[in-house]
Amino acid sequence: MLVYGRNVAKDLLEKNKKIKKIYLQDTFNDNYLKGLIEKRNLNVEVCSKNKIEDLSSGVTQGIILDIPDYSYKDFHDVLNDDNQDFVVLLDHIEDSHNFGAIIRTCEAAGVKTIIIPNKRQVPVNATVWKTSVGTLSNVDVVMVSNISNAIDRLKEVGYWVVGTALENSVDYRSIDYSSKIALVIGNEGEGISNLVAKKCDFIAKIPMYGTTNSLNASVAAGIMIYEVIRNRK
Amino acid sequence: MLVYGRNVAKDLLEKNKKIKKIYLQDTFNDNYLKGLIEKRNLNVEVCSKNKIEDLSSGVTQGIILDIPDYSYKDFHDVLNDDNQDFVVLLDHIEDSHNFGAIIRTCEAAGVKTIIIPNKRQVPVNATVWKTSVGTLSNVDVVMVSNISNAIDRLKEVGYWVVGTALENSVDYRSIDYSSKIALVIGNEGEGISNLVAKKCDFIAKIPMYGTTNSLNASVAAGIMIYEVIRNRK
Repeated sequence: MLVYGRNVAKDLLEKNKKIKKIYLQDTFNDNYLKGLIEKRNLNVEVCSKNKIEDLSSGVTQGIILDIPDYSYKDFHDVLNDDNQDFVVLLDHIEDSHNFGAIIRTCEAAGVKTIIIPNKRQVPVNATVWKTSVGTLSNVDVVMVSNISNAIDRLKEVGYWVVGTALENSVDYRSIDYSSKIALVIGNEGEGISNLVAKKCDFIAKIPMYGTTNSLNASVAAGIMIYEVIRNRK
Repeated sequence: MLVYGRNVAKDLLEKNKKIKKIYLQDTFNDNYLKGLIEKRNLNVEVCSKNKIEDLSSGVTQGIILDIPDYSYKDFHDVLNDDNQDFVVLLDHIEDSHNFGAIIRTCEAAGVKTIIIPNKRQVPVNATVWKTSVGTLSNVDVVMVSNISNAIDRLKEVGYWVVGTALENSVDYRSIDYSSKIALVIGNEGEGISNLVAKKCDFIAKIPMYGTTNSLNASVAAGIMIYEVIRNRK
């Protein structure tokens, strides 16, 4: 898959990740990245701005990397990992920028795993890579066929499940997050589904004092993620 | 200016805001919005998908509204308003989606005023309107020529100024936000400027436990804004 942007390139090059090919715009002048590229025996093609734009659908900052397709982590590894006590589930996030920003927040907060469904959910794509500013390689994304079933399995291994919604909810500051927590972030338009809401041990409400009844999904995720780790770290 | 999207249309129509003209795609079928449009004697042009796409640079959801240019609020009104005790300043936010999401968070949290600089800052544009999902009409945006001078003026009327950065900072949870607070959100790439940082009474750090040293600007704003109001409401 093709990914792009200087932050993404920096992360992949510094971590010695597998890179099949690099497309560099002829005017690319980031000497630090050029130095990292020269250290490895990589297939580099210098090309015109036109070719760079043809290859991508976003702002490349003059560098495109062809890397192996993203390999999603196995859900069983998460269930069997006793060192994890906080995972984030996305109940059908559709916007690549939101998904990327959530990955970035998870990485910053020390959350190792994000679980996504395989339908009506943006997968790991170039925009997600770019919006995550290179943090994606430190977070495992798991793809499951059904978020509701995944919640059941997480509960079996001791996770408490917290969703966010306004109805039938309690103030997000009043919940005890000291046990193993699986935090569910709902879809941008619909929020969490009814089925998922029924499976939650807690429904958390971020209080709203204006006329809007919801926050941007990645903003709500950020507030909730930092609330969960608030008294842990 | 042209703005678009169903949330924006709903807000402007419900609030009886001035609308010069509406462009409706011939397939537009939101009967609630159609009903609101019919109640007013508005200039409506039904047009093809092609024309709608020519008029806009984003996802219109089939409705474009031509409204008067955004009128920025006067800074003196904010300084003289004794009912306000929390304002947000943007130290050069460049991404429309971030600005829109910050407006949405401010509206949700009850923050009435956002202060932006007039250079190297995205102004109120169609994408900002859309990303704010119609909350912009409940928040006043003030444009100033210099954020640093604006901070001086806010200090004169009793505001304590809080910026976010990693260096020379204290844990964001340890700050007393009970007085009048002016919260400064930094640029996506550079953070807050050195000059602005020097003027801050507190520099708040959101702790990071991974390899990244920053959050998306609108996510960081969300965490900080909800931290300021945490013990107030």
